[in-house]
Amino acid sequence: MAEQKQPRKLCIIASKGSLDMAYPPLILANGGRMSGIETHIFFTFWGLDIITKKKNKGLNVAVIGNPNMHPMFHIPSIIGVIPFMSAAATWMMNREMAKLDFPPVDEFVQTLVDSGAHLYACKQSVDMFKLKLEDFVDGSKILGVMEFLEIAEGAQIIFV
Amino acid sequence: MAEQKQPRKLCIIASKGSLDMAYPPLILANGGRMSGIETHIFFTFWGLDIITKKKNKGLNVAVIGNPNMHPMFHIPSIIGVIPFMSAAATWMMNREMAKLDFPPVDEFVQTLVDSGAHLYACKQSVDMFKLKLEDFVDGSKILGVMEFLEIAEGAQIIFV
Amino acid sequence: MAEQKQPRKLCIIASKGSLDMAYPPLILANGGRMSGIETHIFFTFWGLDIITKKKNKGLNVAVIGNPNMHPMFHIPSIIGVIPFMSAAATWMMNREMAKLDFPPVDEFVQTLVDSGAHLYACKQSVDMFKLKLEDFVDGSKILGVMEFLEIAEGAQIIFV
Repeated sequence: MAEQKQPRKLCIIASKGSLDMAYPPLILANGGRMSGIETHIFFTFWGLDIITKKKNKGLNVAVIGNPNMHPMFHIPSIIGVIPFMSAAATWMMNREMAKLDFPPVDEFVQTLVDSGAHLYACKQSVDMFKLKLEDFVDGSKILGVMEFLEIAEGAQIIFV
Repeated sequence: MAEQKQPRKLCIIASKGSLDMAYPPLILANGGRMSGIETHIFFTFWGLDIITKKKNKGLNVAVIGNPNMHPMFHIPSIIGVIPFMSAAATWMMNREMAKLDFPPVDEFVQTLVDSGAHLYACKQSVDMFKLKLEDFVDGSKILGVMEFLEIAEGAQIIFV
Repeated sequence: MAEQKQPRKLCIIASKGSLDMAYPPLILANGGRMSGIETHIFFTFWGLDIITKKKNKGLNVAVIGNPNMHPMFHIPSIIGVIPFMSAAATWMMNREMAKLDFPPVDEFVQTLVDSGAHLYACKQSVDMFKLKLEDFVDGSKILGVMEFLEIAEGAQIIFV
């Protein structure tokens, strides 16, 4: 795999869209860029929300309910039995992340683009959710799994 | 770790048994094989369901409830409060994956075996769930954690 | 990335605090140490509970509810609608792990410290949960994300 003296490369796969699991890939990618490591993030399945412009300002902490659940399923809010609690948990998490000087998800994503991290929307997931390139944060590209695996050659792969 | 010119190797650990988290390891493994990469999948904990013949035709999207939950716990269906919604979400996911030309989980697993991917059932999980080799898809092997780590030397490890 | 003949290194990120997802990083780290591999575990987000002395004796299997949920959010027990079932699932899981000769989480962590595995509490998570070094199992260190990435150079990274 790795060839001698190849520069270090980090390939992160972000597959979750809940607020708490959106941060780990962003924090790792940010650390990678600050260390001068070539960094790629591949957003797939529910993780696609993190770079979707209409959604990444409003990611939630699910209090009850499967954190992998997604509006695609049009499930009415059983979770809405406790909308206040979910909102409270989301508010608290956002506050705690801000205290740690982590920006909100949408700004964090922009910072990563500016820092030279490569952001990809998984082509298969894009098709599944019927999205288009313009739905994603500027600087994102759409990329298939095969192309991602090619880029990931010699990289450290981290699946979140 | 990696020796110069060692061929690329992908070692995927599949630990989840919900329908949505069953696909990422299969899709990554498939991409690996299509790129000619030596590919191993180690099914452990709830991920064991993916290669269990009696179960892998019927994986579900959990609407409410912990996606890591498993029939081993004999929990009566609180989740059954909303059996229709879980069934609807599962149906929708199956339909969307089919639209993307991804086969159902059981056929996908067979495709991977045919393509030369190596499938392992984690020995410790097999014992925990009181299963036997014949419970798994043909071509699977039972393998301990230590042996898996040995195979994974020099590989890119992806934990799902 | 990897330099020729560099000894193998395993860097595990433990981000989940539910009982079932606490075991995979411990089991992988244990396998690593038994194979003589240099092993590091970075406990972050909900995974911090695994090395928190007041908590790691009482990790739970969440029956309903998001396994990423955490007492930080002070959510009263909706989950407590079914406290018996969650307790039963937790008891069953603990029993099954014991049958497999895996020690309880707190003893398992101690075994890892004794075996020479390196345990780190993620500095950012430590701050978020307002914890201190003395809250963690003896032998743990507090480490930032950047320092962790430095240690992880040339390692196989596994995110759980």
